[in-house]
Amino acid sequence: MNFNDPFFKQVDDIRKQIKIKEKFTDMPFSSIVIAGMGGSGVSGRIFASLFQIKPVYVVDSYDLPEFVQKDSFFIAQSYSGNTEETISVAEQAKKRGIKVHAVTSGGKLKEISDETIIIPSGLQPREALSYLLMPLLNTFMESVLKDSDLEKAINQAASKSDEIQDIAKKIVESRKIPYILSWEPFSAMSYRFKTQFNENSKLFALSHVLSEQNHNELVPMALNREMREKFFYLCIEGDGSSKNSERMEMVERISGQTFVRIKPEGSNILEKLFFLIHYLDLLTVMAGILGGYNPEDVRVLENLKKDLSRN
Amino acid sequence: MNFNDPFFKQVDDIRKQIKIKEKFTDMPFSSIVIAGMGGSGVSGRIFASLFQIKPVYVVDSYDLPEFVQKDSFFIAQSYSGNTEETISVAEQAKKRGIKVHAVTSGGKLKEISDETIIIPSGLQPREALSYLLMPLLNTFMESVLKDSDLEKAINQAASKSDEIQDIAKKIVESRKIPYILSWEPFSAMSYRFKTQFNENSKLFALSHVLSEQNHNELVPMALNREMREKFFYLCIEGDGSSKNSERMEMVERISGQTFVRIKPEGSNILEKLFFLIHYLDLLTVMAGILGGYNPEDVRVLENLKKDLSRN
Repeated sequence: MNFNDPFFKQVDDIRKQIKIKEKFTDMPFSSIVIAGMGGSGVSGRIFASLFQIKPVYVVDSYDLPEFVQKDSFFIAQSYSGNTEETISVAEQAKKRGIKVHAVTSGGKLKEISDETIIIPSGLQPREALSYLLMPLLNTFMESVLKDSDLEKAINQAASKSDEIQDIAKKIVESRKIPYILSWEPFSAMSYRFKTQFNENSKLFALSHVLSEQNHNELVPMALNREMREKFFYLCIEGDGSSKNSERMEMVERISGQTFVRIKPEGSNILEKLFFLIHYLDLLTVMAGILGGYNPEDVRVLENLKKDLSRN
Repeated sequence: MNFNDPFFKQVDDIRKQIKIKEKFTDMPFSSIVIAGMGGSGVSGRIFASLFQIKPVYVVDSYDLPEFVQKDSFFIAQSYSGNTEETISVAEQAKKRGIKVHAVTSGGKLKEISDETIIIPSGLQPREALSYLLMPLLNTFMESVLKDSDLEKAINQAASKSDEIQDIAKKIVESRKIPYILSWEPFSAMSYRFKTQFNENSKLFALSHVLSEQNHNELVPMALNREMREKFFYLCIEGDGSSKNSERMEMVERISGQTFVRIKPEGSNILEKLFFLIHYLDLLTVMAGILGGYNPEDVRVLENLKKDLSRN
């Protein structure tokens, strides 16, 4: 295991990211609309699953829904500032007279946005999750943020590197497809985990959430023995007092599969969140390295973008 | 292939379902909130992907988000009327003084709702998709509905049974995991297709949408040869003029995989939608039968519900 892998070091730089203090100017608004794709979009999904006081919509397409108007707090998130879909959505917002807030390292988005939080460049979008997420937390959840606690949570995750490496090794050696289940308040982390397997580990992964999973995917898991053997089962534990915690036990019993349980540590939801972000990043980077891949290499996505922009 | 399978016959009864004319009383509202799980919840997801004039939130958990208040048009969808999560959400709505609209065949939801559309009982939730969806379309999209056209679209799908059976056979014989890609306006059908594979065919399935897929899952698809061979690739074609149509070509080129293309037929979006609903239902039921399973059998889910309610 090469802990000197440059990508590993970058992923480990999350402590720097949580120090960002920038926030947007507040104003009255009816809803929050966050546009972003892939690694830049996942911060919006995570925020939406945490913040319940106002409606939060995540837009992950070329088009801004018709209902989004001036009374929405609109934020475009694109690490490079040049994500085609996000630029398209931000331009539609401008045309409707909606103020465009942006979190970006530069690019076209910096030029067209009205209020911009600039984050350091030189990373890949998925490495910059905390840079993209912190301005949302700073603006809308400032009262519950303490960065000493967040740093403690990150250090806590980092201290588990043996455990994390052990899980990564088991996944890679199994040659199976990671299957991820979670529940509130960490439902969005199930999707983040999946996409990190995709990009960092070059593995497909299947992610679902409870209790919705109990209404469909539990069927093949219980009845199709051949197919259920194709997966490696992981669980990101959500709220322990939720009924979904009980449902998770039942999934294990009914399917006869033991899930590797990832239990977030921390004394509040944000500490647990940052514990998980770092834990899952380390795990997927390690799985990439152990699988013989370069976790940083996503040239395939970059080439696609170039091909699209040529047309 | 046993076309006399009773479940097959029921699935084929969609023509009856689209005749339902009930709609809710209209009133001013700021957003539409639809609570529903599994087969009863998918109608909300499909509606949300079609309707862009007002914000539509789908609630698929035990809790009604804090921001949902009296100015929301709240609809609870539960075929049985006894879905634990949906009842919990509807009760929270009542406590906040929000009017509870419901689409159900009876149960507790019928008792607690303020305005109720009763649909025929005796089906499984996933078979009743059109009963659950039509009241939403009748209430909010009446102007574009013509049921002669919808019936034509359904008949068009039914006329393709040889083609459908051929695809189902290839999937089952491959012993692979269905992988589904789609894009707007049929993004929600990607999830529906997945859940129908789960329940009707007893197969796991992976579903994703464009362009988001190009930001993550394309990586293993391009680089991990061993793992990409585990999947059987299917595409539900979305809007042909969308940039995502071009992205789909690129996914095939980059991954070297040929997708089975399912092309919705019809002269407008609702015809295409009902073509797809019926096509995918038939396909997943056939895959179940060909795989040696009873498509109707979801006792595992029913047992789970019983176990949960005992606790």
